[in-house]
Amino acid sequence: MNSDADALRTVKDADRKHVFHSWSAQELIDPLAVAGAEGSYFWDYEGNRYLDFSSALVYTNIGYQHPKVAAAIAEQAGKLCTVAPGFAVDVRSEAARLIAERTPGDLDKIFFTNAGAEAVENAVRMARLHTGRPKVMSAYRSYHGATTTAINLTGDARRFGNDTATAGVVHFWGPFPYRSPFYAGSEAEECERALRHLEDTVVFEGPQSIAAIILETVGGAPGVLVPPAGYLAGVREICDRHGIVFILDEVMVGFGRTGKWFAAENWDVTPDLLCFAKGVTSGYVPLGGVAISSAIAETFARRPYPGGLTYSGHVLACAAAVATIGVMAEEGVVEQSARTGAELLGPGLRALAERHPSVGEVRGLGTFWALELVRDAGTREPLVPYNASGAENAPMAAFGAALKKGGLWPLLAGNRIHVAPPCNISAEDVAKGLEILDGALAVTDAHMA
Amino acid sequence: MNSDADALRTVKDADRKHVFHSWSAQELIDPLAVAGAEGSYFWDYEGNRYLDFSSALVYTNIGYQHPKVAAAIAEQAGKLCTVAPGFAVDVRSEAARLIAERTPGDLDKIFFTNAGAEAVENAVRMARLHTGRPKVMSAYRSYHGATTTAINLTGDARRFGNDTATAGVVHFWGPFPYRSPFYAGSEAEECERALRHLEDTVVFEGPQSIAAIILETVGGAPGVLVPPAGYLAGVREICDRHGIVFILDEVMVGFGRTGKWFAAENWDVTPDLLCFAKGVTSGYVPLGGVAISSAIAETFARRPYPGGLTYSGHVLACAAAVATIGVMAEEGVVEQSARTGAELLGPGLRALAERHPSVGEVRGLGTFWALELVRDAGTREPLVPYNASGAENAPMAAFGAALKKGGLWPLLAGNRIHVAPPCNISAEDVAKGLEILDGALAVTDAHMA
Ligand SMILES: Cc1ncc(COP(=O)(O)O)c(C=O)c1O
Ligand SMILES: Cc1ncc(COP(=O)(O)O)c(C=O)c1O
Repeated sequence: MNSDADALRTVKDADRKHVFHSWSAQELIDPLAVAGAEGSYFWDYEGNRYLDFSSALVYTNIGYQHPKVAAAIAEQAGKLCTVAPGFAVDVRSEAARLIAERTPGDLDKIFFTNAGAEAVENAVRMARLHTGRPKVMSAYRSYHGATTTAINLTGDARRFGNDTATAGVVHFWGPFPYRSPFYAGSEAEECERALRHLEDTVVFEGPQSIAAIILETVGGAPGVLVPPAGYLAGVREICDRHGIVFILDEVMVGFGRTGKWFAAENWDVTPDLLCFAKGVTSGYVPLGGVAISSAIAETFARRPYPGGLTYSGHVLACAAAVATIGVMAEEGVVEQSARTGAELLGPGLRALAERHPSVGEVRGLGTFWALELVRDAGTREPLVPYNASGAENAPMAAFGAALKKGGLWPLLAGNRIHVAPPCNISAEDVAKGLEILDGALAVTDAHMA
Repeated sequence: MNSDADALRTVKDADRKHVFHSWSAQELIDPLAVAGAEGSYFWDYEGNRYLDFSSALVYTNIGYQHPKVAAAIAEQAGKLCTVAPGFAVDVRSEAARLIAERTPGDLDKIFFTNAGAEAVENAVRMARLHTGRPKVMSAYRSYHGATTTAINLTGDARRFGNDTATAGVVHFWGPFPYRSPFYAGSEAEECERALRHLEDTVVFEGPQSIAAIILETVGGAPGVLVPPAGYLAGVREICDRHGIVFILDEVMVGFGRTGKWFAAENWDVTPDLLCFAKGVTSGYVPLGGVAISSAIAETFARRPYPGGLTYSGHVLACAAAVATIGVMAEEGVVEQSARTGAELLGPGLRALAERHPSVGEVRGLGTFWALELVRDAGTREPLVPYNASGAENAPMAAFGAALKKGGLWPLLAGNRIHVAPPCNISAEDVAKGLEILDGALAVTDAHMA
């Protein structure tokens, strides 16, 4: 126990002295020291185990430390960790082939990046050069990463403080039946009005100036925003009519999260460019990329593509991707994610909503769900205001504390909890998580108006 | 042999079908398939071994497949590959501590990224928010990465085709004694005039609008541009006088490349922010970051930093950094790099220059050198024009082919060869590389006017 306490002190001391953390006021945080992780759980130095309903940041799609993927990485480390991006290498070729086989339509060329933001940066560069047009359109409720173009495309509050640096980004409103920006009375009406709004915005911006429309297939960070049937097909049609490149950002939803290899399959839509990261290696080694249609690849067949990065197609990362995709295929993880959503998480969360008045809406699919927490079921007033912090955010903070105390690590965002366990979570652990949620929702119920 | 030929065909077929390569016209390239690598060598499927005088893209500072680092990665893979960036983790804390101990001055907080471009993006964001000013100044001869801000800061031709996307970047001319933009007659005069040019440009842009000046400590991709004595101290003084953040980009030159842990030590200069990547893990696992001064860290002590990324402080990458830094320290790799430069590479390359009229200048330090190849020693006309391709570039292409035929993999850039072997290259391999260079320089000599 003493050596554990010493180890904990060493980790925490150096963290507080030397590690600068993302998205944080450095002196107002107190990071939990994690000692280990396996499957759907991680644990700290004091013996507390947490059921991870956040999959880290929605990326450990096969859970922590899958033995086959860990072994494949170890094996590759002993063989060959890296060579320059200009060469052909077995696992780089194989990873590209395995991904291309799974992406929809003719998205058959893979440009590898280190992670999500760089995938978005490169997709946008490709679209601008392919069309010769400057502007890119994205949704207000979206997250696309934190490099200059990615953070400016982002619609959520993380963009604030990053507004000086780019030109050519236009935001529009996507469909959101529960909080309709279009005063729609039904999902079908929401879809129709959202498409009309997008078409009108395209026309008033000038279609000839718009290189691309980028959307998360299912909005992730902004709240598991499942598009109404017909919306993505409608966007595809608008893009086609105006010669606009359609980019789907599947960084969070690709590789099994929605019960398909790629979320676009749920609506039979094929974009021109598809961004991926996270699930492709379950985050074991950083990797992301863009899957490219044959028409856009053709643009760069005899004309150099003016973009690149030192670690494009990193060997160790590609080996992790090959192993992860192999495990997902062999163990039916994608199908399991779909089943878990349809049979366990969906019904279970809806049952909670019936018992807990603070749950305003349950939405999702596969292993990707959100509960919209409200003060008033009639007005749908959010439990905490947009971008709340400090005292304003107290009800959500108390909810989070109750969940952690119960042994569940939650992903809280605004007035919502996102429920995103590993895609291969067991039925027992789903049941356990739902039970912990059930208990903690008493905290949010207490804040009803 | 047959199975080797089959393996080669599989690798190449999938590469040509599915891998989209950086900076390339996809149908005009024919990537060499690499079968393995060790130390300062890699080899293909046909039995050809290459002495790697490029260190991949100047990042395998300890060579390929160092057994201790490969073993540390394998061990960490079996233990814990990843947890979310918000937690404290042993190897993340330890990597930050080891880096902070080596960075100059009070650069004691480390923000981890996946690689170099993201390090630059975050350094610029920090500088803009710290100062409340919009503009950033960078050199025309520079490379800073390929995300939106990084590529627009970049001064070399890779920026072309990327010009639409950002605002607030101002380019100026750095010192370059061999091709002086300031008509200087000596290095001291070049230094003085370059500082005067920078000061004038700052004044005419408006100091109160300038957040940062970013420089590569030694210009890497633009040609191993070693700053004259006094230049960096002069830039530091200009920054201090005008309240401008001084960013040094050590992505290519950090971690031993110039014979110091960080190149800034060669001139006793401490920046406010220092970007690193590449050598920190020798590229075995992607990792980069920004080392932050206490004044800038203080800005984000109680105010959230509006930037982040999924894999900030990636666990497996941090384990690779801990092992790499350990090996460099134990095996004296930094000192070896300095010695190799002073005793072997410097004298050896200068001897070549005396024998080969096409070598216009030799410059460098540590294991980081460039030969400037010219048509005419008097006029210093470059062997090929700026940004040459196709027939114009034929002399450099023939030079490259001769080097490869001799068994050396070169890093060619414009009219230059950059000589950047692993920092721990053996004396025998230096001698061998110099001999191959000696032979191939006959090709460039033949193009003298
Ligand atoms: C949809 C989406 N795009 C892009 C990103 C950025 O990815 P990264 O943090 O790896 O740069 C994220 C991260 O959460 C994301 O959810
Ligand atoms: C000085 C410098 N900065 C930044 C970068 C970009 O690094 P990355 O390719 O890892 O994004 C490079 C890459 O060569 C570099 O040399």
